[in-house]
Amino acid sequence: MTAPLLAALDIGGTKTAAALVRAGAVLTRTRAATPARDGATAVLDHAAALVRSLGGEPVAVGVGAPGLVDPATGLLTAATSSISDWSGVDVPGGLRDRLDLPGVVLNDVQAFTLGEAVHGAGRGLPTVVGVAVGTGIGGGVHAAGTLLTGRSGAAGHVGHLPVPQAVGRPCPCGATGHVEAVAAGPAVAAAYTARTGEPVDLPEVVRRARAGDEIARALLADAGAALGTALAGLANVLDPDRIVVGGGAAVPELLAAAAPAFAAACMPVLGPVPLVPAALGADAALVGAAEAALRALGSGAVTR
Amino acid sequence: MTAPLLAALDIGGTKTAAALVRAGAVLTRTRAATPARDGATAVLDHAAALVRSLGGEPVAVGVGAPGLVDPATGLLTAATSSISDWSGVDVPGGLRDRLDLPGVVLNDVQAFTLGEAVHGAGRGLPTVVGVAVGTGIGGGVHAAGTLLTGRSGAAGHVGHLPVPQAVGRPCPCGATGHVEAVAAGPAVAAAYTARTGEPVDLPEVVRRARAGDEIARALLADAGAALGTALAGLANVLDPDRIVVGGGAAVPELLAAAAPAFAAACMPVLGPVPLVPAALGADAALVGAAEAALRALGSGAVTR
Repeated sequence: MTAPLLAALDIGGTKTAAALVRAGAVLTRTRAATPARDGATAVLDHAAALVRSLGGEPVAVGVGAPGLVDPATGLLTAATSSISDWSGVDVPGGLRDRLDLPGVVLNDVQAFTLGEAVHGAGRGLPTVVGVAVGTGIGGGVHAAGTLLTGRSGAAGHVGHLPVPQAVGRPCPCGATGHVEAVAAGPAVAAAYTARTGEPVDLPEVVRRARAGDEIARALLADAGAALGTALAGLANVLDPDRIVVGGGAAVPELLAAAAPAFAAACMPVLGPVPLVPAALGADAALVGAAEAALRALGSGAVTR
Repeated sequence: MTAPLLAALDIGGTKTAAALVRAGAVLTRTRAATPARDGATAVLDHAAALVRSLGGEPVAVGVGAPGLVDPATGLLTAATSSISDWSGVDVPGGLRDRLDLPGVVLNDVQAFTLGEAVHGAGRGLPTVVGVAVGTGIGGGVHAAGTLLTGRSGAAGHVGHLPVPQAVGRPCPCGATGHVEAVAAGPAVAAAYTARTGEPVDLPEVVRRARAGDEIARALLADAGAALGTALAGLANVLDPDRIVVGGGAAVPELLAAAAPAFAAACMPVLGPVPLVPAALGADAALVGAAEAALRALGSGAVTR
């Protein structure tokens, strides 16, 4: 029996990627700018057109999208401001109307986690934590064969673990003291600017660190140590088989600094917990979205 | 159809409790000192005798016990020193030999969590975190209909979340900086002794706090704040419906201090996350052990 052919969408504020996926493998993909300022209807029209352009006969569509997905209704809540009118949207309903396909939507970082946990760096392992370091620090938990979503669809916000290094620092979430406030890309860049007066972004901080800039090096080391401390706490609670770290700001310098702090704060009884880079690159959310669609079909949560 | 009658054991270093449980309700119970210094064989003989003394015709036995349970083998690992020769013991096998009943064993604090999550303060809710504050701080996570055990059976060690309040403090686990190092009963008592030179235990600190002792009050407030901070991080990652706190050191003063620190460090998008006292008292681990036995029967993991 051949595994079903699935369509996958990774809708971002900047780009939308579409793919055909079978058994965790991306067969074809395409990508184009998201018409984010034109609102949800335009974004869904565009996403559906991308799926159609791939041809094939997928049996369902899975979507990773910014925002939280209400587990009860499947509607987007607490949605990103990067897409106009995104909150409250029924993504599966909108795509069903346009593509005549059943579908599911999940948070984009949860989709990344599901993809990496099932078909990427966590493949075959029962308990996997995904971490995506970028403009924020998100993630997800895959355990007991399930992507945990939580009460409000917010499970996986690993960037909001308190760490000593972040005491008093305002976090984008509105609270203070979370690791995201010191270890996400913009936090590192802002710290560099605060120290030097020079406006930079994270890639520039990384370039300078590699060129020998001691301030840049120290800030990346501090950010990595904070991330390692936070993830150790999570390892102590979840006893995962593996923690998979990806995202545009998960540069080697950050991961190198995270590793010793992580090891130092993990309970010795756990033994070494593998903290590894993500394996699927930009495809992770597509693979995870397809996996979510497959699971929804299998559970009868969606039907043709 | 009547729910099955189950035997439950809560084996501790000091006392062993046995009960007959049906549908989450304890029908009869008994309790006696554990022959902990006489080793595992004596402890299992004694436990089996306690079950026999209850009569009835239970169809399976569930056991909560100190130590970790290897998810692959069901054997105890990293076991407590409070029972001699406990590490490596096959508790279900030992009870099957003595009682001719199929059985399961799980960590005692995980049993507490399962009991509270399914039949206690978390009843009917999909995602519940259990926290037991005593000589250590343990706990568990019940999500997606499953008690998470993790790779090595260690899932639920919520006392080993790093918090700013514990920087540099040695934790009983061997690492440093964990909330258990400042908020567990012995940590609070030791801090009082360090401040005053007076050897005390936690109940004495609590008595003094209630009598107006400012040092005792401040230490309980600090411990509670540290616990609240740690649990907020966990709430941010798991988005639970409820966090249930029990255990002998979970005194009202501690919980009162935990609540504002918890609320301050939770992501605002979660809305208020209920942080509530446990509901089943000393029966929680018995009820959880019975639930584990029921689930093992249902899954075919054990059979008569």
